[in-house]
Amino acid sequence: MTSSFHEMWEELRPLGRDSSSGGYRRFAWTGADTDCRAWFRAQAEARGLAYELDRNGNQWAWLGATGHQDVAPGEAVVTGSHLDSVPDGGAFDGPLGVVSSFAALDELRGRGAEPTRPLAIVNFGDEEGARFGLACVGSRLSAGALTAEAAHRLRDGDGVTLPQAMERAGHDPEAIGPDPERLATIGAFVELHVEQGRALDLSGDPVGIASAIWPHGRWRFDFHGEANHAGTTRLEDRRDPMLSYAATVLAAREQARLAGALATFGKVSVEPNGVNAIPSLVRGWLDARAAGQDTLDTVITGIERAAAERAARDGVDLDVVRESFTPVVEFQHALRDELGALLGKKSERPVPVLGTGAGHDAGILSATVPTAMLFVRNPTGVSHSPAEAAAEDDCVAGVTALADVLEGLACR
Amino acid sequence: MTSSFHEMWEELRPLGRDSSSGGYRRFAWTGADTDCRAWFRAQAEARGLAYELDRNGNQWAWLGATGHQDVAPGEAVVTGSHLDSVPDGGAFDGPLGVVSSFAALDELRGRGAEPTRPLAIVNFGDEEGARFGLACVGSRLSAGALTAEAAHRLRDGDGVTLPQAMERAGHDPEAIGPDPERLATIGAFVELHVEQGRALDLSGDPVGIASAIWPHGRWRFDFHGEANHAGTTRLEDRRDPMLSYAATVLAAREQARLAGALATFGKVSVEPNGVNAIPSLVRGWLDARAAGQDTLDTVITGIERAAAERAARDGVDLDVVRESFTPVVEFQHALRDELGALLGKKSERPVPVLGTGAGHDAGILSATVPTAMLFVRNPTGVSHSPAEAAAEDDCVAGVTALADVLEGLACR
Repeated sequence: MTSSFHEMWEELRPLGRDSSSGGYRRFAWTGADTDCRAWFRAQAEARGLAYELDRNGNQWAWLGATGHQDVAPGEAVVTGSHLDSVPDGGAFDGPLGVVSSFAALDELRGRGAEPTRPLAIVNFGDEEGARFGLACVGSRLSAGALTAEAAHRLRDGDGVTLPQAMERAGHDPEAIGPDPERLATIGAFVELHVEQGRALDLSGDPVGIASAIWPHGRWRFDFHGEANHAGTTRLEDRRDPMLSYAATVLAAREQARLAGALATFGKVSVEPNGVNAIPSLVRGWLDARAAGQDTLDTVITGIERAAAERAARDGVDLDVVRESFTPVVEFQHALRDELGALLGKKSERPVPVLGTGAGHDAGILSATVPTAMLFVRNPTGVSHSPAEAAAEDDCVAGVTALADVLEGLACR
Repeated sequence: MTSSFHEMWEELRPLGRDSSSGGYRRFAWTGADTDCRAWFRAQAEARGLAYELDRNGNQWAWLGATGHQDVAPGEAVVTGSHLDSVPDGGAFDGPLGVVSSFAALDELRGRGAEPTRPLAIVNFGDEEGARFGLACVGSRLSAGALTAEAAHRLRDGDGVTLPQAMERAGHDPEAIGPDPERLATIGAFVELHVEQGRALDLSGDPVGIASAIWPHGRWRFDFHGEANHAGTTRLEDRRDPMLSYAATVLAAREQARLAGALATFGKVSVEPNGVNAIPSLVRGWLDARAAGQDTLDTVITGIERAAAERAARDGVDLDVVRESFTPVVEFQHALRDELGALLGKKSERPVPVLGTGAGHDAGILSATVPTAMLFVRNPTGVSHSPAEAAAEDDCVAGVTALADVLEGLACR
């Protein structure tokens, strides 16, 4: 007896939930993560699927194969997502894709569809990077986008290394590393995900197809001023970096608005951070994303110029460091168009194709594997928060769409 | 053989000095503080002054009395300051007043002046509040402006309570409390201090007289927004409190500029403070000071209005809490005028009278004791930093002025 879609949600609901915030704290290799992994394995086994845990801690459930070693290159159709969360994350980011994968498989079976290709459902480990500060560790390791050496150096906020955390959770950290043979079996990977914005809500569609992950990056702005007494230093004698920072925060919003991009200062650190001290240093981190590289370049240039002008006016020295950058990820056009055709058969109007500013395991895999994504409407547009939402009807529509896609790809 | 002015500075220079920053870390009841106290006692004894440590850890050196018990109410003329420092403080804030007091006494003796009133030099303990977070603990306890119960609850950043710290330094914490009989002996208290701004530098005077300590306070601005994903949330769907905070920082500067006041946001805390997270909360602390209460009220009202308007535009909720407030401290006009007359005798033009935004032990004592302050020019205007400065000629001018004042007050 397998769990229904509704039952799966009920089973997952209490795992790693923080009773005060109502949000989830399912961090990699913790007890809550172990609970989620046990749930995944139970779902696989209840459906008679072959369960595999790969070297990097990603879980696989196979239909039509006992594991990836049975599968010829490019033969497998894979779907899935992740079960871990950001701190106080919502219920849907990740789990919606995994639950919908099992439910779509159930629907395929209910339809009597007979897969002619091996099908797998995957739960990628440590997608959010909430504990070790790097997102998509499971998929990055498998794809060779993160070396085992670099992964071994990751540490959580308590100083626990990733290998220590893996060992405590019963996983061999010496095994981690690239998994090219496994990835080579994948002919198509489709990840269903709750939308992390309101595009579908605004267009009135329950389901959409991803076009691309926007180019995005992180820039650190260091404003160096001069520490001084806030109660005695004349305004004209100050070199106050908080002023330059504040002006840059507002300039970032303005540049993003003008360009139709996103720019956010969400993190700041101040020295000495005393109430009666003009700061010596204000360090702000800019997260910026845009649909295209040119637009992003324009936004960053505009923000840097505004910051430099204000810093000069404040007598403040400015250093800008690009800490990370990910170029645009275009999902494979052929697969995207195939999904559009498969879903368009039942729909009166074309299924919307939309970009996203968030990274995903699908983005990591797309470097080597034909990859696509489906988005399910999020009426609040809120993400990484307990306020994240998806209506039950829309979740069901997502399952149906995923079943249609899997049937079209795997049952020809 | 007593130390000369120059020798006193040489003796103090290495005590509690941080070799990397070049600043001082003379925090209350630490080893550096003990070293400074030993220096004070040695200076007193070398000059044949009667040494007293009062119940609150303030040190006294008496000329013409064996201690305060010998002195009739209102008879004593007292000068001095403090020897502790802020973290990485400069060499002059505090020590200039103590060193100048001993040097002024030496000068009085050199002049052959015979005091007709008891004279005392004081080193107030824990003026900066760097360790326990409350300034002027020594003078507050003596004046009854801080109860022993409240002082017993003070804790440093390592969780050490003030009584524990006192005990470790050999001082009985059970003894602390008001000292009205001692304060009643003081007919005049004059504190010499390095200026913490550039008013004297701009007017071209080596020494000035304090008019008042500006009314000042601390306000906490809590901007409550909505945590969300920085990479996916449309600008129009955001409730980003960092924007409201940034606009308020700039508004504070503008309001202060228009009013001729001081307003500073030097401390901020952000939740969750993640690079890819729109904050749920930005909490900023405003330090504001002005020459008069009306001006300060105007500044605060203007900042609060600007913050509320911007918060409403950003969909952000705002709470403003006044965390502390000190009304204006007017130094006694009679004593101030007397100092002006005494110093004016030798000067071609009137000695400037100026307000200050910083708190001092003199401000605490002024509630019960006739009190005045002398300021010595600081060419950098910088304070609470190793860049704090005073030229040797100006320090000597300060000693001369203090000797003139003491002679005028105590040798009539």
